[in-house]
Amino acid sequence: MTLPEEPNLAIVGATGAVGRELMNLLIERRFAHGRLRLLASARSAGRLLPYCGTSLAVEELTERSFADIDLAFFSAGGAISRQYAPAAVEAGAIVIDNSSAFRMDDDVPLIVPEINGNGLARFSGPAIIANPNCSTIIALMAATPLHRAATVKRMVISTYQAASGAGAAWMAELQQQALDHAAGTPYTMRTTGRQLLFNVFSHNSPLGPEGYNEEEMKLLRETRKIWSDESVLISATCVRVPVLRAHSAAINLTFARPLDEQEAHRVLAEAPGLRVVDDRAANRFPEPIDADGKDDVLVGRIRSDISQAPGMGMDMFVSGDQLRKGAALNALQIAEMLP
Amino acid sequence: MTLPEEPNLAIVGATGAVGRELMNLLIERRFAHGRLRLLASARSAGRLLPYCGTSLAVEELTERSFADIDLAFFSAGGAISRQYAPAAVEAGAIVIDNSSAFRMDDDVPLIVPEINGNGLARFSGPAIIANPNCSTIIALMAATPLHRAATVKRMVISTYQAASGAGAAWMAELQQQALDHAAGTPYTMRTTGRQLLFNVFSHNSPLGPEGYNEEEMKLLRETRKIWSDESVLISATCVRVPVLRAHSAAINLTFARPLDEQEAHRVLAEAPGLRVVDDRAANRFPEPIDADGKDDVLVGRIRSDISQAPGMGMDMFVSGDQLRKGAALNALQIAEMLP
Repeated sequence: MTLPEEPNLAIVGATGAVGRELMNLLIERRFAHGRLRLLASARSAGRLLPYCGTSLAVEELTERSFADIDLAFFSAGGAISRQYAPAAVEAGAIVIDNSSAFRMDDDVPLIVPEINGNGLARFSGPAIIANPNCSTIIALMAATPLHRAATVKRMVISTYQAASGAGAAWMAELQQQALDHAAGTPYTMRTTGRQLLFNVFSHNSPLGPEGYNEEEMKLLRETRKIWSDESVLISATCVRVPVLRAHSAAINLTFARPLDEQEAHRVLAEAPGLRVVDDRAANRFPEPIDADGKDDVLVGRIRSDISQAPGMGMDMFVSGDQLRKGAALNALQIAEMLP
Repeated sequence: MTLPEEPNLAIVGATGAVGRELMNLLIERRFAHGRLRLLASARSAGRLLPYCGTSLAVEELTERSFADIDLAFFSAGGAISRQYAPAAVEAGAIVIDNSSAFRMDDDVPLIVPEINGNGLARFSGPAIIANPNCSTIIALMAATPLHRAATVKRMVISTYQAASGAGAAWMAELQQQALDHAAGTPYTMRTTGRQLLFNVFSHNSPLGPEGYNEEEMKLLRETRKIWSDESVLISATCVRVPVLRAHSAAINLTFARPLDEQEAHRVLAEAPGLRVVDDRAANRFPEPIDADGKDDVLVGRIRSDISQAPGMGMDMFVSGDQLRKGAALNALQIAEMLP
């Protein structure tokens, strides 16, 4: 099965932050398509969303929503994907799933186009393709070129993750808290349950028996699958920071073979989807506000790790738009690569 | 020379964030003293600062400011310390210097009382004692108990540093930017030159030839001196986050001898000046807003590093008030230990 020239599309979770970003990207990247069906919960049904100068009504997601759909983007959380993605596949659609529901399934490809998109040329649906987690995508965009050059044996990652990763309501509440601060009123915590403004805290996903939270374990498991390398070691600390929509991460790498700083710069500068921002004299490096709304992941603070044998380790800092490359853009790039 | 029962004090940089915190702490900790002289630049001379129910006038700092002073706290930057601390010593005072000016001098003790305060029992002035950098103090409060238990060979540290580390004006500007956001006006960047609100960026200190900034190199050099261990290896990434006055850090340790998680918990729980905040079920861990205004450094996310051989590595996350334990409190604790 190959996609028709102008596939009929569905977006599950159209009212969410990723769904809306995907609609922007369909227009921006001139993704040729037939019908576009916006799906969400019954609560949002009938709501009109602007699209390409007109408005489209949101429809209630049911198992019958996919009758004439060729390609369905899911971005409404794992439970919705688990419940409805099989129905979409049953109806003949290719599903590109942004949730974690199927990522680790053996028969589901987990794809970052620049890294392991090759396999898609032979992909035949109807079936599910999984989009990795946002912090995995953003970290691997920078780590993979160095992995290819020197084989990464171990990574220590500390993240600086934006509110958008928890959804549009968190972004709104972070902004509301700035208004509350200005008004001198107590912080609104309806959605988040916590103070985001002027604060940082450990990622709000449940912790497993080893003391790592789900976000951290995704970084490990998804990297191993994307790199087809079960031996890579990762210890991650995932932290929320009061930033709107771009994730950052400090990444410390240990190599199997030496790689000097100049070569690392060259390899990163040549990597697609990556932009080196590394001006030591001006003290200018990746910042989330500069990655905001951009397709490229920014990488900088590239330096040989002074705590490892010369050339055997590298440090760097990345920022990438969580809603774009971390989610909607990566999903659409997958669609663009489908035969 | 020992200090008199009620030493005459001077605070150099009394109008700054650390100076003002020190005045609060003198009262809070009932530090017995005679005269208290507040010193600052000519620009601030004559300004009245509240102290203990009265007001004290700020005097202009000159080389003759220290005639009858027994103990002088310096917190006005390296250049001021280099220029005036020798005059204070000359006049017979003990100087506790919060700047980086003398920290690495062989004959200047670099002290965190809970870690290497023992030596102070034999200290005889007039001379200079240096207060370590804020991020060094806060990281070592948690790393040292584990170092004693299992010998830390290597640390990878990523910081989440508050505005206060750059001074009171940065704190004010971060708050102003929240007001600007609420008012819909462009961000005020008079002092910082950058957007702090909703952003993070690499620490604003100059970078050296190896690509590490000064803040990162302080963590390495000061740790080696405080631990009397030139072999410890550190790679740090220092990052500013939009937080007012508590620094946080993700710390990854590699040990020389195995240490299990339970033993690490026990050792950290018993360490003075440290409070374990580590509730995996409730997802509650150290946050800068909880460390704000507190003496204790908070430590949590304590877990055996799954990327190293069992027991040979540990991860944790710390938050500590940058103005208290990171600066003024540590300086006053040094004074309290003087004979």
